[in-house]
Amino acid sequence: MGVHKITGVFSAAATPLDSDGNPDLKRFSGHCRRLLDEGCHGIALLGTTGEANSFSVRERIAILESAVSAGIPADRLLPGTGVAATPDTVELTRHALSLGVTKVVMLPPFYYKGVSDDGLFAAYSHILDAIADDRLQVILYHIPQVSGIPLSLPLIERLIAAYPQQVVGIKDSAGDFNSMQGLVETFPGFSVLAGADPLMLPLLKVGGAGCITATSNLVADSLRIVYDHVHDPERQAEVEAAQDRINAYRALSNTYVQIPTIKAMIGLKTGEEGWRRTRPPLMPLADADFAALAARFSELPRGVR
Amino acid sequence: MGVHKITGVFSAAATPLDSDGNPDLKRFSGHCRRLLDEGCHGIALLGTTGEANSFSVRERIAILESAVSAGIPADRLLPGTGVAATPDTVELTRHALSLGVTKVVMLPPFYYKGVSDDGLFAAYSHILDAIADDRLQVILYHIPQVSGIPLSLPLIERLIAAYPQQVVGIKDSAGDFNSMQGLVETFPGFSVLAGADPLMLPLLKVGGAGCITATSNLVADSLRIVYDHVHDPERQAEVEAAQDRINAYRALSNTYVQIPTIKAMIGLKTGEEGWRRTRPPLMPLADADFAALAARFSELPRGVR
Repeated sequence: MGVHKITGVFSAAATPLDSDGNPDLKRFSGHCRRLLDEGCHGIALLGTTGEANSFSVRERIAILESAVSAGIPADRLLPGTGVAATPDTVELTRHALSLGVTKVVMLPPFYYKGVSDDGLFAAYSHILDAIADDRLQVILYHIPQVSGIPLSLPLIERLIAAYPQQVVGIKDSAGDFNSMQGLVETFPGFSVLAGADPLMLPLLKVGGAGCITATSNLVADSLRIVYDHVHDPERQAEVEAAQDRINAYRALSNTYVQIPTIKAMIGLKTGEEGWRRTRPPLMPLADADFAALAARFSELPRGVR
Repeated sequence: MGVHKITGVFSAAATPLDSDGNPDLKRFSGHCRRLLDEGCHGIALLGTTGEANSFSVRERIAILESAVSAGIPADRLLPGTGVAATPDTVELTRHALSLGVTKVVMLPPFYYKGVSDDGLFAAYSHILDAIADDRLQVILYHIPQVSGIPLSLPLIERLIAAYPQQVVGIKDSAGDFNSMQGLVETFPGFSVLAGADPLMLPLLKVGGAGCITATSNLVADSLRIVYDHVHDPERQAEVEAAQDRINAYRALSNTYVQIPTIKAMIGLKTGEEGWRRTRPPLMPLADADFAALAARFSELPRGVR
């Protein structure tokens, strides 16, 4: 694992909202601290689960600043900074760097579909050249089912060749294990991070770097057990039990629309108000669904950490 | 036609860039003036053809302001203001209203896919309620092949019922004529505007309101002839000849990636430098393609207005 610049269990942290629909910054930094306490190596805030693209640039800046101000170490924050307009991606990434946050997860520009690899390479190049900061480490973000923009193997290869110090990894949320394994084998040292919880375990076994997942909002401790002991033959029962817990939480989170369900489950876990709220176009769970979720949640196994 | 609040030939104006890749504001306002001189009823700037979602909020504000400052009448500007984050949509729409620009074209939030009609209704409601300005007239924007977000008939019906004064029309760029005709028949007085040039003529015949199209950057005069005389039995030969010209330009613009090709053709038409530039992820035509395009462009029929 040591070969990777970025490796570990990273949480695609959800973003709580206050009763006016604005980011609840205090609750958010508390959530980040809890995720670290539960074992996350870092917080991949402002991703898809974090509803980042439903927030304005100004709101995103405020969310990241609030986490840093609350004492979450900058080197454990990996904000999403990739948006549709490259100048905003530059602004968000520069802002992160200004806070000492050097690792970011970067979506490609996602409005136009069917764009060429040349166009995506030009977009990433423009962004990286405009920022021109050697501290920056970029995790590419491949989630074609949401962004509509797959990142091809030749594109990734060009980016790594052109920016070997900066393009250090990928969050692969497409869910295709063979493709992830192919990335690991093709690009030694490049951090391939699973975007889906069931895939971290097999990915680690073939040399992957870890995960950035939604279920880590709920079971970071179990993910950490898998990460820490996957290569220890004597602890495989423990690893398997942890993976079973992860899978149980993930299965329940997929019963309804995932992001609102994850948020509702965080509220059930913590007893904190407000976690059911989402920003449109995502909708909170209906009351009946929430009640059914709560009943099933109470039967889930608890963490052990 | 008089029944529609918004009716006419509107150009999905392309946005020229300077040599640094920034919007060329002076050239843009000149382009708007030319489009009006050639017969457009208005300019639907900052749409898909205008690469709007590749520009930051600040750049979009500057582009709209430059057109107003250059003397383009506010009531002939229909900027796109819908982006992924609803607070930015609110900001862009309020800014338009502050300039006296009351008609906007509004994409739904387009990052998350497969969202519910409830979620899209909530997003549009949130935006319209936050703006709360009776002057505002919104043209919904249905372009699922790019946005990934279709606007369903039940959603449109709910929006018209809830905001009858504000939700006044739709730009339908999906290219399905039967669906457009269905909108015309289902919602009398609701302005259905064709997003594709070949469909304006048949759409006008069944009661549609006009078009917002890319080819109007090149053949606004011919589109205006179709619009003005479609219902005059004695001028059908003239209408058909105009439609033939429109179709010839459109066919050529579809030989390569459409938006860069439209921009290159504007440069060929006007002799102005710089129109070949695009912002990533869109790429300019390669030199060989541009040369081939130029040769074919020189053989196209010219306008008659």
